[in-house]
Amino acid sequence: MVKVGILDCHTTEFTKETDKDIVNLACESAIPILRNNPLENDIESVIISSCSEQQYLGPIVSESLGIKPKNAFKLDNLCNSGTNSITIAYSLISSGICESALVIGVEKTPSPGSVLKWDITRGSFRNPIYWASLFAKSHMKRYKTTREQIAMVAVNNRKNASSNPKALFRDLIKIEDVLKSRLISYPLRLFDCSYSCNGASAILLASENLVKKTADQPLWIKGIGQSTQSASFSKIASNLASLESTKNASRQAFHMSKLKPKDIDIIELHDAFTILQILALEDMGFVEKGKGGYFIERNQDTGFINPRGGILGCGHAIGATGIAQTVEVIEQLKGLAGERQISNCNNGIVHNLSAAGTSANILIIGKD
Amino acid sequence: MVKVGILDCHTTEFTKETDKDIVNLACESAIPILRNNPLENDIESVIISSCSEQQYLGPIVSESLGIKPKNAFKLDNLCNSGTNSITIAYSLISSGICESALVIGVEKTPSPGSVLKWDITRGSFRNPIYWASLFAKSHMKRYKTTREQIAMVAVNNRKNASSNPKALFRDLIKIEDVLKSRLISYPLRLFDCSYSCNGASAILLASENLVKKTADQPLWIKGIGQSTQSASFSKIASNLASLESTKNASRQAFHMSKLKPKDIDIIELHDAFTILQILALEDMGFVEKGKGGYFIERNQDTGFINPRGGILGCGHAIGATGIAQTVEVIEQLKGLAGERQISNCNNGIVHNLSAAGTSANILIIGKD
Repeated sequence: MVKVGILDCHTTEFTKETDKDIVNLACESAIPILRNNPLENDIESVIISSCSEQQYLGPIVSESLGIKPKNAFKLDNLCNSGTNSITIAYSLISSGICESALVIGVEKTPSPGSVLKWDITRGSFRNPIYWASLFAKSHMKRYKTTREQIAMVAVNNRKNASSNPKALFRDLIKIEDVLKSRLISYPLRLFDCSYSCNGASAILLASENLVKKTADQPLWIKGIGQSTQSASFSKIASNLASLESTKNASRQAFHMSKLKPKDIDIIELHDAFTILQILALEDMGFVEKGKGGYFIERNQDTGFINPRGGILGCGHAIGATGIAQTVEVIEQLKGLAGERQISNCNNGIVHNLSAAGTSANILIIGKD
Repeated sequence: MVKVGILDCHTTEFTKETDKDIVNLACESAIPILRNNPLENDIESVIISSCSEQQYLGPIVSESLGIKPKNAFKLDNLCNSGTNSITIAYSLISSGICESALVIGVEKTPSPGSVLKWDITRGSFRNPIYWASLFAKSHMKRYKTTREQIAMVAVNNRKNASSNPKALFRDLIKIEDVLKSRLISYPLRLFDCSYSCNGASAILLASENLVKKTADQPLWIKGIGQSTQSASFSKIASNLASLESTKNASRQAFHMSKLKPKDIDIIELHDAFTILQILALEDMGFVEKGKGGYFIERNQDTGFINPRGGILGCGHAIGATGIAQTVEVIEQLKGLAGERQISNCNNGIVHNLSAAGTSANILIIGKD
């Protein structure tokens, strides 16, 4: 099997407003990569991760970038689209079908991915906040997790975002600010929620052969985990304090990488709502089940968790989020994270989930 | 590298009207496969090939089918979506990320993929008929291809469709019928055009290990070719009598398979318009450039080309078409094609193209 490594990456600023169309946004994230691109031949695959309804987006972005890949297509799987697309890039390269793949995540508001309108098992409660509030209630009841502990997730991630020039929300907040913000669905409030925004992020992956030729300090995709439990909330409602899809995906990724949670130096996890950070830390095995809230409370300086500011701090450009999280891991591993650099970074993990955690994806990336 | 084989396949009837939604249509094609499915474990990947704007279609179809794959997502690349998706399934299995993959192509009218509304280089001529008519005019002028030769493609494919119970148009037509049908864009007429319709088609692929365990007569994906030249018509307009993307993809697929055109016993090629069949036969190397029209005229019994009836005979369920073409090749190779069975079938080829042939995909499938 061909090993798959990373050549370059870039993320645009995440914004509330943009005057760019979706093609321009996608190109904005890829152009710096193409400028540095050390490949002699054309990039062989262009994968667009997006909930956008724009047809033929792969070839349109490829033509706009001036490249003629073998394949170019759009992949959609809501919040998992980014990590899904990286998994496909890995497969195309590892199987020898392509030597290189440019994965571009891009989203322009209003995104059709921000409401779960297909899931009639939710009744009229189709906005993701409704299931997030059930997770929060369940965790608080079962494990005595406090409202303050959950609020601390937002405080930490906003703090991390404050040193990320690409993040949407760079102002510091306090626990009281979260608890005083507008109640949306008990017990969750405005500052517990991410904001659907515009943005793009891109990564150029390549075969071992190409990576060794061009990169001084190669990074490799070491582990991949994926799990689809269902599409509807009713099917996962039997235990709302834990996410089976995250547990499965995590188990697979650690197994494939031969690493353990203690080997991971940076964690990029899916915090579209504060409570999800607590579930993810537990379900990926970083914290004992039920202790996530207490862990957050005790470790107020959690700079190694969502150092870019998480989805809460950066904004949620749905198709771009998984790519931007992976870019953060890459930049941390390469020592390019500036003010928010974590010391001694050798391995990082990226966690994504879609639609009430009905599916999840995990990537583990590391040095040689 | 893991070899990738085929376990089972099924196509629904292609129809003008349907009372099913897109999820039901997708399931209709997959349920017969799941009934026969000899796998001990769950199918590990579900790829939905479709232009549909329905979000989270992969997990929704998976849940509806009662399976919990590792990954489940939607891939969109217009008319190439089907063969693109099979290429991704191949990569996932060959790289060892998944052991099995169910690829489902599905489309419900009106499909957003039937008008090329993004391509402003076409001016107001955004319906695919306009570029097809330019191809026809160019080929007629440069190679003295006759209007009758082009019409013969429709006559042949409708004849093949007459013995395919899944085809939309099963009535025989004559050259005169084509030439008397309504003029749409000179020189092409109504019967030169395919019809955008409803339909679904599915294939279950698996690793060599699983295929050898379960299949008496294994079929393998032997060759894959892919080429994206551009997204806009203006970029390919310098030579309208040949399609660079088809030539590139064909060269790659034959190289990978170590086969030559003379080794191919059944050809499924993209005939959304009659003229495309002539271009494809030439650009894939089955007929000398410029001789496609004369080849069709001399070989009126071309049952080995588009034996299911082509897109002209079957209808064009955009995301499903590439899968249905591949299903035809599989059934022919397995000797399951009934009335339209071609004798001594060992290797078959599938050709797809998108949006004025700006991109193309080729698959070669064969016996051990």
